Amino acid sequence: MIIIAERINATRKRIGKAVVERDEKHIRREARIQAEAGATYIDCNAGRNPDSEIEDLKWMIGLVQDEVETPISIDSANPDAIAAGLNLVKKTPIINSVTAEKERIDKIMPLAAKSGAMLVSLCLNEGGMPVGLDDRLRAAETIVKAAEGAGIGVNRLIFDPLIVPISTDPAEVRAAIEAVRQIMTRWPGTHTTCGLSNISFGLPCRNVLNRTYLAMLVEAGLDGAIMDPTEPHMMATALAAEALVGRDEYCMEYIKAGRADKLD
Amino acid sequence: MIIIAERINATRKRIGKAVVERDEKHIRREARIQAEAGATYIDCNAGRNPDSEIEDLKWMIGLVQDEVETPISIDSANPDAIAAGLNLVKKTPIINSVTAEKERIDKIMPLAAKSGAMLVSLCLNEGGMPVGLDDRLRAAETIVKAAEGAGIGVNRLIFDPLIVPISTDPAEVRAAIEAVRQIMTRWPGTHTTCGLSNISFGLPCRNVLNRTYLAMLVEAGLDGAIMDPTEPHMMATALAAEALVGRDEYCMEYIKAGRADKLD
Repeated sequence: MIIIAERINATRKRIGKAVVERDEKHIRREARIQAEAGATYIDCNAGRNPDSEIEDLKWMIGLVQDEVETPISIDSANPDAIAAGLNLVKKTPIINSVTAEKERIDKIMPLAAKSGAMLVSLCLNEGGMPVGLDDRLRAAETIVKAAEGAGIGVNRLIFDPLIVPISTDPAEVRAAIEAVRQIMTRWPGTHTTCGLSNISFGLPCRNVLNRTYLAMLVEAGLDGAIMDPTEPHMMATALAAEALVGRDEYCMEYIKAGRADKLD
Repeated sequence: MIIIAERINATRKRIGKAVVERDEKHIRREARIQAEAGATYIDCNAGRNPDSEIEDLKWMIGLVQDEVETPISIDSANPDAIAAGLNLVKKTPIINSVTAEKERIDKIMPLAAKSGAMLVSLCLNEGGMPVGLDDRLRAAETIVKAAEGAGIGVNRLIFDPLIVPISTDPAEVRAAIEAVRQIMTRWPGTHTTCGLSNISFGLPCRNVLNRTYLAMLVEAGLDGAIMDPTEPHMMATALAAEALVGRDEYCMEYIKAGRADKLD
């Protein structure tokens, strides 16, 4: 699975403080623990203060790739910040993210095309958060067409169906699962991910809901997640789910993780 | 969910010993911990020694229903033992189990019809363990028809698609999920269950696989499980899964369990 590790996000209080204070040790540690937990990419989001975002992001990315070998997911709403990040990265990164909104497509697609980066593609139309399955599929189709126009194959797109908290609308929980199933069937070779923890917003024992939802989504075809790989039992669930859907031949990765005491 | 708690099974070494020694305290304790963990039914299986099974089962059921209020799942391959159990139970039990085999149907259906019991219905044809989806659906259909003939509605049937270990055949893992999905769609009001722990046979950290598979099956419609409710995180997963598929309005049961410290 493509695990995009989400902890280094300056909109989180503790990370925001580290950014303001240029606390290298804290950011390095966050990178390290996520890499060791099994991150495929380390997400870097410096979107705390628009005036300093570009400088903050450059500092963040520099530190993370100095500390670990794991490639970067450049996470920003600002295309200029993404462009600055692309100039810095040593390995092919993920761009997080594009949407089906025209303005966003026009600015982000050329950056993805030029850099060869993979592209988190939010199922978000001009009208805001999607409602139901069709809204999500419509957004995905818009993005696929734009990507084709820019010479980007579906194998470089990672669709995020956008997770709505259960507490907001239970019907959306199922719609997101079905969106994953249909996207993976309709565009073979493409990828899907989601900001998993949104599902449990406002509820107790969030990690139980997060990992249970992950299992359901993987059954539907999900092959990635934006999540905290240090959260208890989360990587164990990801490994078990991969084994159960036949993406881990002879359960070798699962067994290896068991031997390394990484399944608790 | 209909949780059939599986621990009191005389083919397990420790329980077999308790049965031979008529160790009341041990059986009572097993009943108690499973009831407290959230069992809907306590399975009683005395199938260790055919010569003494009926007496052993009667002793077992007597103890369990003296110790806890939870109703019994009478688990035997011997119709006479099931009949003896039915004569003893204080509450409407589950009969575990019938199959699609003619001999079994002929003996078990009348017992289920007369007692009003629910009936675990294994998707097993004359030829032995099912292979693939169609085998399972064919067995289910045979059982539905026989049940109708005996005046038993699908709402009293609990289909078990029969779980094959991942290590034996990964394709069967998916076939069982699909069988649940199709059975629940085709016969509205019916139920599904499975012997969950079979999935992880021969692999390390079995409970991680068991609970991850449970989440996938519940997404497909599963509304019960034959499992050990005292296994770590298992009931938490069941509760989270119910909330995620919209079977726990406003997540009330989930929140209640959280408050009672039962989600860890």
